[in-house]
Amino acid sequence: MESTFELLRQIEKENDIKKIPAEKYDELAEEIRRFLLEHISVTGGHLGSNLGAVELTMALHLSLQLPKDKIIWDVGHQSYTHKLLTGRREGFDNLRKYGGMSGFPKRKESDCDCFDTGHSSTSISAGLGMVMARDIRKEKHTIVSVIGDGSLTGGMAYEAMNNASKLDTNFIIILNDNNMSISENVGGVSQYLNNIRTAETYLDIKEGVYNRLMRSKTGEGLVETIRRAKSSVKHLVIPGMFFEDMGLTYLGPVDGHDVPAMLKVMKEAKRCKGAVIVHVMTQKGKGYAPAERHPARFHGAEPFEIETGLPKKTREKANYTDVFSTVMCKLGQRNDKIVAITAAMPDGTGLKRFHNMFPERFFDVGIAEEHAVTFAAGLAAGGMKPIVAIYSSFLQRAYDQILHDVCIQNMPVIFAIDRAGLVGSDGETHQGIFDLSFLSSIPNMQIMAPKNKWELSDMLKFAVDFEGPIAIRYPRGTAYDGLSEYREAISFGKSEMIYEERNTALLAVGSMVQTAVGVRDALKAEGMDCSLVNARFVKPIDEEMIRRLAKEHDLLVTMEENVLSGGFGEKVMEFVRAENLPCKVMPIALPDEYVEHGNVDILKKEVGIDEESIVERICSSQDRPKRREK
Amino acid sequence: MESTFELLRQIEKENDIKKIPAEKYDELAEEIRRFLLEHISVTGGHLGSNLGAVELTMALHLSLQLPKDKIIWDVGHQSYTHKLLTGRREGFDNLRKYGGMSGFPKRKESDCDCFDTGHSSTSISAGLGMVMARDIRKEKHTIVSVIGDGSLTGGMAYEAMNNASKLDTNFIIILNDNNMSISENVGGVSQYLNNIRTAETYLDIKEGVYNRLMRSKTGEGLVETIRRAKSSVKHLVIPGMFFEDMGLTYLGPVDGHDVPAMLKVMKEAKRCKGAVIVHVMTQKGKGYAPAERHPARFHGAEPFEIETGLPKKTREKANYTDVFSTVMCKLGQRNDKIVAITAAMPDGTGLKRFHNMFPERFFDVGIAEEHAVTFAAGLAAGGMKPIVAIYSSFLQRAYDQILHDVCIQNMPVIFAIDRAGLVGSDGETHQGIFDLSFLSSIPNMQIMAPKNKWELSDMLKFAVDFEGPIAIRYPRGTAYDGLSEYREAISFGKSEMIYEERNTALLAVGSMVQTAVGVRDALKAEGMDCSLVNARFVKPIDEEMIRRLAKEHDLLVTMEENVLSGGFGEKVMEFVRAENLPCKVMPIALPDEYVEHGNVDILKKEVGIDEESIVERICSSQDRPKRREK
Repeated sequence: MESTFELLRQIEKENDIKKIPAEKYDELAEEIRRFLLEHISVTGGHLGSNLGAVELTMALHLSLQLPKDKIIWDVGHQSYTHKLLTGRREGFDNLRKYGGMSGFPKRKESDCDCFDTGHSSTSISAGLGMVMARDIRKEKHTIVSVIGDGSLTGGMAYEAMNNASKLDTNFIIILNDNNMSISENVGGVSQYLNNIRTAETYLDIKEGVYNRLMRSKTGEGLVETIRRAKSSVKHLVIPGMFFEDMGLTYLGPVDGHDVPAMLKVMKEAKRCKGAVIVHVMTQKGKGYAPAERHPARFHGAEPFEIETGLPKKTREKANYTDVFSTVMCKLGQRNDKIVAITAAMPDGTGLKRFHNMFPERFFDVGIAEEHAVTFAAGLAAGGMKPIVAIYSSFLQRAYDQILHDVCIQNMPVIFAIDRAGLVGSDGETHQGIFDLSFLSSIPNMQIMAPKNKWELSDMLKFAVDFEGPIAIRYPRGTAYDGLSEYREAISFGKSEMIYEERNTALLAVGSMVQTAVGVRDALKAEGMDCSLVNARFVKPIDEEMIRRLAKEHDLLVTMEENVLSGGFGEKVMEFVRAENLPCKVMPIALPDEYVEHGNVDILKKEVGIDEESIVERICSSQDRPKRREK
Repeated sequence: MESTFELLRQIEKENDIKKIPAEKYDELAEEIRRFLLEHISVTGGHLGSNLGAVELTMALHLSLQLPKDKIIWDVGHQSYTHKLLTGRREGFDNLRKYGGMSGFPKRKESDCDCFDTGHSSTSISAGLGMVMARDIRKEKHTIVSVIGDGSLTGGMAYEAMNNASKLDTNFIIILNDNNMSISENVGGVSQYLNNIRTAETYLDIKEGVYNRLMRSKTGEGLVETIRRAKSSVKHLVIPGMFFEDMGLTYLGPVDGHDVPAMLKVMKEAKRCKGAVIVHVMTQKGKGYAPAERHPARFHGAEPFEIETGLPKKTREKANYTDVFSTVMCKLGQRNDKIVAITAAMPDGTGLKRFHNMFPERFFDVGIAEEHAVTFAAGLAAGGMKPIVAIYSSFLQRAYDQILHDVCIQNMPVIFAIDRAGLVGSDGETHQGIFDLSFLSSIPNMQIMAPKNKWELSDMLKFAVDFEGPIAIRYPRGTAYDGLSEYREAISFGKSEMIYEERNTALLAVGSMVQTAVGVRDALKAEGMDCSLVNARFVKPIDEEMIRRLAKEHDLLVTMEENVLSGGFGEKVMEFVRAENLPCKVMPIALPDEYVEHGNVDILKKEVGIDEESIVERICSSQDRPKRREK
C-alpha cells in the first residue's frame, strides 16, 4: 500500500511550498521524512543528514525565491529535501542509479541547483564568488551557503570566511550544526561550538534576546541593537565571538527543527549588510530512531528495513576496507612505530578498530586532508611510521602536501587509498580514477595495487618496511578472493606472473586482475593464447618483466581503473618506446571524462573496461592475437 | 674592505650564540643585519623577512637546545639568521646558486633543519606531527613552529590549529606578525590581529601583565594566573580570544625586536601544557630603510646597491609577467565581465595594475589557493569571466578544486600560470614542472603555452572567448621576443607550423619553442632537415598536425619543460600508437626527480632539456635523422 503524501503532492515545483499554510509545516515535515524513509530504505542513500535538514530546507525555501536566490549545499548529500521541494519527487525512484537522479546537487538537473558539490568545505568559497558576481552585475538576490559543522574543520571554509569578512553586502552562511559530521567531530572549533550549545548563555538567549527578536513585528533595527549589545558586553554573554572576531556577524543559535524560529532569523539575516553566519542546531537522523541512535551507520545507507533499521542484504564477503582494518590491528601490535591517520573517516576507512586498540596512535584530524598529510610527514620526521587512510577522490585535496611535504623529503609515509577506481552511486565527484595519474607525476612516490585481499595484507606489510613514500590503492566493495594460490612475496618494483603463454599478455593493475582473469578465459575459449601478469607496482613499473613479455608476445594489454592520461599504460608505453621493444601496447583505461553515478558494473561497461569490452577491443585490434593452430 | 663580524665570528655552530653575553645581543643583531645585507645585496635572496626575524631567531636559539629541540620555519625563506647561527656562514657566498646553499631549510643541509619548507602554512601541521611522535616515543624536547601572519590566511594553518587544541603537552607556535606577508594582508583574521596590535589593551598589557611577567624571577605559576585572569575578565581586556576560542593558549603580543622580552615569554611558553601561540610583533625589513619602505620589492630581491637599494642590473626586456599585466588591463577595459584573482601575489603575478584600474574586479584572497579557485568557480557561476593568476607550484594546492569545482561543471575559469617550468634559485619546492601533468589528467581542462610574448597576449584573448576551463602556462623571466613574424590566429586545439621540412620534426611546447629554434639551427648546420612546430595546445593535442608530420618525418621530438609522466610527450606518443602512425616519438621532458636550486640555464643542462643535450640526443638516437645528400 502506497503512503499518501497529501501536502507533498501539492508541491510540484520550487516556491509551491509557500502555498502550504504555516500550521501545516509540522505535517509537511513529517511527510517529507516519511517520503525519504520509504525511498531511501529501498534505493539506499544518505539518510541521517537529510532527516536532520528537513525543517532547515523548508525554512530556506519559504524565505527565498528560487531560482533567483541561490542555495549552495556544502558536500551536497543533505539536499534531498531541496530536491523534493523543487519538482524532483519522482527522481527518488531512481536515486543514484545509472541515468537516474544524483544524490548531490547538479546544475544540469535543475536551475535551482546553482553549484555542484560533493567534496567538503567548498560552499562558502563558491557562495562568496556568486555574491561578488551579483554585486558587480548590480543584481539583487540572496545567496545562502549551507555548511555543516564537520565541513567547518576544512581549511577552505576558514579561508572563505576570512575573505567574506570584508563584504559590505549581504551573504548568508547557515551553519547546520548537528554536532556530528560523518563521525565524531574533532578539534578546537568543534569544542567551541559545543560550548555555545551547552552554555547557559544559549538557554538565556533562547529565552531572551532571540525570543524578543522573534516576537518583534518589524524586527527593524534589532540586529543593530544586538550588534551594539555585543560591543558593550563584548564576549561576556553573546556566543559566536569566534566568528565575530573573524569579521562575520553571528546570529544564533537557533533551533533547526523550529520552522517559525528559522523564518524569523532568516528575515534578520537578510537585512545584514555583510556576511552573516546563522548558527542552526539540528539533529542528524531526526525523527527516525535507528538513525538518531546510529548516525554513522545511517550516513550513507544501503537499502534497509524501516521497522528495524537493519540492512536488507547482509554482506557475506569481506571488502577491502575490512581487510585493511584487520591488518592494521595486527601491524599495530607488532610495530609500535605505526600510527594511523584519517580525515573524518574512522568508520569508512576501517580504522575504528585500530583506534580502539591503540587510541594514542590513532589520529582523526577532521575533514582536513591537507593537514592530515603534512601532519603525517611531521610524524615521520619524528621517527614514526604513519599510515594515512584517505579515499582516492579526497586525497586529491592533498596533492601539494604529498608532493611538497612528503616526497621532496622522501618521508616514509604510507598512503592507504580506499575507494580507488569507480565507486558507483556517489558519482563523478567521488570516483577515484585520478590517483594513479596525480601520484605518478610525483618524484620519490611509489605506488602499489593488490589483486586480491591477501595481497592487500602483504602489501601493507611490505609498505611498513619500505623506507620512503608509498601508496596502496584498492577499490570500494567486495574484496576479490580468487587467485588465492598466487602469493609470491612482494618484492620492490616486481610484478607477478600468473599465467605464462604467448601472443597476448595482459598486464593488469589491482582490481583489473580479476577482470583480466575473465578476459583471458574468454580469449582461451576462442582458442587464443594469453599470458596474465599482475602488475603489483604501478610505479616503478617492472621493466624486466616488460622486456620478458615483449620477447614472446606481440601485444601487451595494460589494464587499469584510472584515466589514461598519466596512468600506468602510458608509463608502459613510454618504456616500450624507449627500449624499442618489438611489441605493441594496448592501454585499457578510463577515457578523459567524468563518470556519473550508477552501478559499478554498468559504469565499467559504459567506459569500456569490463570483460566483454576488453575482449572485443583485443579481438578487433589490428594487432589482434593469433588463434592456436588446430 | 671586508666588514668585521666580531661576534658572528664566534658563532661556529648551533648553541654557540649562548656564549655571547646578553649585553651584546643588540650588537650581534646589528652584525647579523650587516652580514645579511652585504651578502644578499650581492647574491640576491629574501631580504625583508630575514631582517625582520633577526632578534626572533636569536631568542629561539638562546631558548632552545638544537638540534634536540626543533624549529619548523613556515615557508622557510626567513631562515637565514637560523642558518648563520648553525654554522652555515660560508654558505652565504653561494646562496641559492647551483650546488650552493638553499634559501630554504633543508634537512640534508643541517640536522638543525628538521623539516623542509617552501610553500606556506605547513609548519603547524608538521610541528604537531613531531609533537605527537615525541610524546608517543616519550621523548622530551621542545618543538616550535614559526609562522607568519600571511601564512595564517592559509586554511591548512587553521586545520592544524584546530587539531593542536586537544594537545595536553607542550607545543609552541610563534606567530611572527609583521602585518605584511609578501603583500598586504587580507581578511578578517588580519583585521583581528591588527585590532590587537593597535588596541589600547595592547599598550596596557605591555605596561601591565607582561611587564610583571618579565620582571618575575621564577615566573612560576604566572601563566596560570593569566589563564585565570582571562577566565574572569574573559575577552574584555585580554587579546587573543580568537585563538583561545580555538583552544590554544595565547601569549602576547610581545615586541619581536626585544630579545630579553622574548626570552621571558619563551620561558613561559615552554611551561604550558598544551599548544601555545606566542604573538610576536616584528617589522619586515627592520634596520634597512629601503626595505622598511618597500617591503614588496625587498621580499625576494635581485642583487642591489646597499646605499640606494636600487637593483644592480636594470631589466631591459619585458618578462611574461609584464606582458600579462599589460594585457590584463586592456582586457579589463574591453570586457567588464573579467575579474582577476590572486592568492597574495598581486605584484608577483603582475595584477597590481589591474587592481589599480579595476579595484572592484580584483580579488586578493590571501595565501589561500584552494579558496581562490573555488571562489573563481563561484564567480563564473555568477556570470563573470574569472582569471586566476597563480604560480605553477602553488597551483598544486588547488588540484582538487580545479578538478571538482571548476572542471566537473565545465566553468569558464582561466588559469594564468606564471613561473611554469624551472624557476631557478628558489629550488625544488618552487619549480613549476608538474602542471602539465596534473592539469592534463583533469577532464574538460584545456591547456595552452605561448612561444613568445605576443602569443601570451593572443592566448589570453582567446581564453576570454573560450567557454570552459582553460589554462595558459608561461615561464619566469624574460619573455622570448623571437619569431615575431609568426602570429597566426589562435585556433582551438591547433598548433602552428614554423618551419616545414622533412625527416625530423620538433614539436615544442611554450618556452621550448625558443630552445627548438636553436636545436633546429644546430641540426641544419650539421646538414639535417628539421621541421619545427609550436604546439600551442598541450591539451587537446593537434591530432591533424601529428598525422601530417608523421607522413613526412621519421622522428617526432616533443619538447616540454615539465616532467615526462603525464605530460605532453606521453599524450603525443599515445596518439601515435593509437593511430599506428609510421614515425618514432622522442619525448624531451624532465626526469622523475626534484630539481634543486640554481641558475636556470645550468639546471636545464643538468636535466637534459638544453639545446646541446637535445641535439646530442637526437643525433645519437637509433632513429637519428638522415643528413641531406650533398
